[in-house]
Amino acid sequence: MTTTTDSQDSPLVPVECRFPIIGVVHSPFREPPGTPIQPSRASGAEGVVQVYAPYLDGLRDLEGFERIWLLYWLHRASTGSLLVTPFLDPTPRGVFATRAPSRPAPIGMSAVRLRQVRGSFLDIEGVDIVDGTPLLDIKPYVPAFDSYPRSKAGWFDSAKSKRRLADRRFQPEGRGDQP
Amino acid sequence: MTTTTDSQDSPLVPVECRFPIIGVVHSPFREPPGTPIQPSRASGAEGVVQVYAPYLDGLRDLEGFERIWLLYWLHRASTGSLLVTPFLDPTPRGVFATRAPSRPAPIGMSAVRLRQVRGSFLDIEGVDIVDGTPLLDIKPYVPAFDSYPRSKAGWFDSAKSKRRLADRRFQPEGRGDQP
Repeated sequence: MTTTTDSQDSPLVPVECRFPIIGVVHSPFREPPGTPIQPSRASGAEGVVQVYAPYLDGLRDLEGFERIWLLYWLHRASTGSLLVTPFLDPTPRGVFATRAPSRPAPIGMSAVRLRQVRGSFLDIEGVDIVDGTPLLDIKPYVPAFDSYPRSKAGWFDSAKSKRRLADRRFQPEGRGDQP
Repeated sequence: MTTTTDSQDSPLVPVECRFPIIGVVHSPFREPPGTPIQPSRASGAEGVVQVYAPYLDGLRDLEGFERIWLLYWLHRASTGSLLVTPFLDPTPRGVFATRAPSRPAPIGMSAVRLRQVRGSFLDIEGVDIVDGTPLLDIKPYVPAFDSYPRSKAGWFDSAKSKRRLADRRFQPEGRGDQP
């Protein structure tokens, strides 16, 4: 399922790994601009996760979790620079100190609300994900593992922006509105 | 950086995606058995994240975050079944309702405590990661995005196990203690 590839001869040159895509996220957001930047700023936007047939058995026992983590490939983001100006702050920041979609390994993660499991479909709420996004993994949200309500959050703690929606800044240049 | 590969001819057969490995996690845990199962059960175990040279600029502004998410390739886990018996419960569960390391796309995620940034090295605490694990991404932990302390957590809410350390169950068969 996964494998390392080239560049084995130098320990400083990163290798790659591969993952299967297990499903797709359907959402009201056809383009990155206008998509909410986080579930907590998505005002209850609804979507549907479709899990592909080979992986259906893995969904057993998922109902009962109020939230789930979705891990997905940010397939519409540019690979971009290591310094980005995030949505919530005018200062360029190191990309690993932001949640910007343009990242060396563009894996997105969202704690969405799980409304219902219908066979291979999961009805979700709080969707900050572009329609058609390839799904990599689903994990249950477990407060004992995931919730640190008083954790200090660097520049986020002083960011004043109330922005809720993404704009064009992390799209590949020249692609404009094309899919 | 990422690309889809084979199986484009059938919409039901998932395609793959590829990600670069941006660094490596150094930890006291040489083998999956005996490794803590979550940061919150790791009793302050310390480790070091090494970020490879091409990605160093992305670390700017990371100091100031009390916790960071590490996303990494669970390279020592078996690909395994879609039904797993998790560490904290004797009942087989759908893998997507567990945090077991054996998953179709074996991506691990841990909210570890960030102690210090020293150039390309991050000193971290609460390490539940096997030594040598390939790193995929670092994201800041932001309570406004990540913390839902009262979220209902399905079978976890009634699991009584106090287990803190992993055992052999998610290792590839026949590999024993080999690296």
